[in-house]
Amino acid sequence: MGGFAAATAVLKVADGCYAVDLDGDYGFEHALNGGYLMAVLARAAIGESAHPHPIATSASFLRTVAAGPAEVRVEPRKSGRTATVARVILAQEGQDRVEALITTGTLDGDAEPDYSVGQEKIPPIEECVTFGADNGFTRRIDLRYDPATMGWLDGRPSGVPEIRAHLRLREPYDPDGILLALAVDALPPVVLNMSASGWAPTVELTWHMRAVPAPGWLAVHGRGRLVSDGWFDEEVEVWDSTGRLVAQSRQIARVGRGRS
Amino acid sequence: MGGFAAATAVLKVADGCYAVDLDGDYGFEHALNGGYLMAVLARAAIGESAHPHPIATSASFLRTVAAGPAEVRVEPRKSGRTATVARVILAQEGQDRVEALITTGTLDGDAEPDYSVGQEKIPPIEECVTFGADNGFTRRIDLRYDPATMGWLDGRPSGVPEIRAHLRLREPYDPDGILLALAVDALPPVVLNMSASGWAPTVELTWHMRAVPAPGWLAVHGRGRLVSDGWFDEEVEVWDSTGRLVAQSRQIARVGRGRS
Repeated sequence: MGGFAAATAVLKVADGCYAVDLDGDYGFEHALNGGYLMAVLARAAIGESAHPHPIATSASFLRTVAAGPAEVRVEPRKSGRTATVARVILAQEGQDRVEALITTGTLDGDAEPDYSVGQEKIPPIEECVTFGADNGFTRRIDLRYDPATMGWLDGRPSGVPEIRAHLRLREPYDPDGILLALAVDALPPVVLNMSASGWAPTVELTWHMRAVPAPGWLAVHGRGRLVSDGWFDEEVEVWDSTGRLVAQSRQIARVGRGRS
Repeated sequence: MGGFAAATAVLKVADGCYAVDLDGDYGFEHALNGGYLMAVLARAAIGESAHPHPIATSASFLRTVAAGPAEVRVEPRKSGRTATVARVILAQEGQDRVEALITTGTLDGDAEPDYSVGQEKIPPIEECVTFGADNGFTRRIDLRYDPATMGWLDGRPSGVPEIRAHLRLREPYDPDGILLALAVDALPPVVLNMSASGWAPTVELTWHMRAVPAPGWLAVHGRGRLVSDGWFDEEVEVWDSTGRLVAQSRQIARVGRGRS
C-alpha cells in the first residue's frame, strides 16, 4: 500500500490537466473526505504555479466523489509575484464534482509572527483517546482526541460544538501544505456534541495555510459558532509541534439527520 | 444620487450576463471596496437562483476594479433544493477582475438557533466615535467605532488587531443579505492597530450569511488571529439589532506598507 504522497499524486496528461487515482482509504461509506480531495487539488495547483504553498483554498463540494480515477483541471486566473490564482476543478465520470479557487504563494519558513493569538489548551497526547472502526481513514491517520470533547461517543454530548485532537499520519511524513489540507477537514463533525448524528455534508470549505509547519504532531482545534436552521459552521485551527498557528479554516455544512 | 439598491442594481442583458454601473462612492483612491463588489455579485447570483440568500461567497480579488460600467457573468455549477452554486465573475474593460463561488440557499427568518456563541462586548452607539474624511464611503455608510479599538487614529495603536463598529446605511434600508456582503468588508484593516499603514489589499475573502437580519443597526466585530510574513487574516462577525449572529467572514490580505 502506498503512502499519503502516492494517494495525492497527480499525473500531468496535458497542459493544466492531471490524472489522479483516488484512494478509498481516505473516506467513508458516503464519500471521500473533503480534506483529502483538497490535498489532491493543492498538488495540482502547485504543479501549475511558481509558488509552493496553498495560501488560500475555497472549495465548493458540488457532488460526492468516489474512489478511483478522476481528473483535475487547473485554469489559470492570475499569475503574480506575491500570489497566483487558479480555478481548480475535480471531475469524475465526465462530471465536475468539486470546484475550488486556489491562491498559491511563497511563505518564509523562518518568519517570526508579528502577532499571534495563543493556542487553546489541549491535553498531552498520552491523556487523549482514540476512536474509530478499523477503516481506511483510521489506518492512515492517527488521531488522539481530547476526551473533554468526545462525550458524544458515550451518549453524553457536551452541548458545545467543539472537538480537538492531535493528528499525524501513520507513516514518516513531515507536515506540509498538502497534509494541512487534509488536517482542516479530518475531525468528526463538531455538531456530534449537539446530539446531531450521521453524515454532515460540507457545502463549502475555505482554508488558509499561514506558516510552514515544523515536523511532528499537529494539533487540530475545531469548533462551531452557530448552529441554526439546519446549517452549522466549523472553524478549525491547526497548530504545529512548536505551538505555531499554521492553518485556519471555516466550513459551512448541513446538520446530519440520519443515523451514523 | 441613488441609494444602495441603485448602486448594486444589476441589469440582465443576456442569459447569465448582467450589466452594472459601479458607484465610485463605495471605494477609495486605490480601488472600489471589496464588500461593495461582493454585494453586486450577490445580486447577480440571486438573479439566477431559485434561492434568495447568499449562504456562502468565496471571492478572489484578481485585479482592482474602478467606478463605471462592468459586466457580471453567472455560470451555473449546481442547482439544488437546499443549495445552488454558481461561479460569478466581474469583468471590466474585457478583463476578469473578481471571481467568486456563490452558494445560494433559503434561510428561515423565524429560525431560533440551536446553539450560538454570545456577542462580544461593544459600547452603545452614543459612546462610539466616528472618523473619516468627507468621502463617498462615509457619506453612504454610518460607522460608529468602539473607541478602545481606534487608538491608531491618534498614533496609539492598541497592539491588538481588532476593530469594532456599529454600521448602518445613511438612508432607510433594512439590512439584508446584500448589505451583509458590504458589512463584512467595511472596517478599516485591523492591522492598523499593529502600526501598519496604508492600503491592505484583500487577496481572498469568504463570507457566510447565517441568518436573516432584523431591522436596525448592525454590529461589526473584526479581528485578526495571526500577522506574519506580510500576510494577515481578518475575521468579521456581524450581529443584528436583536443580538443574533447574522454573518461571518474571513479574509486573507497583505499588510500595508505604503502611506495611508
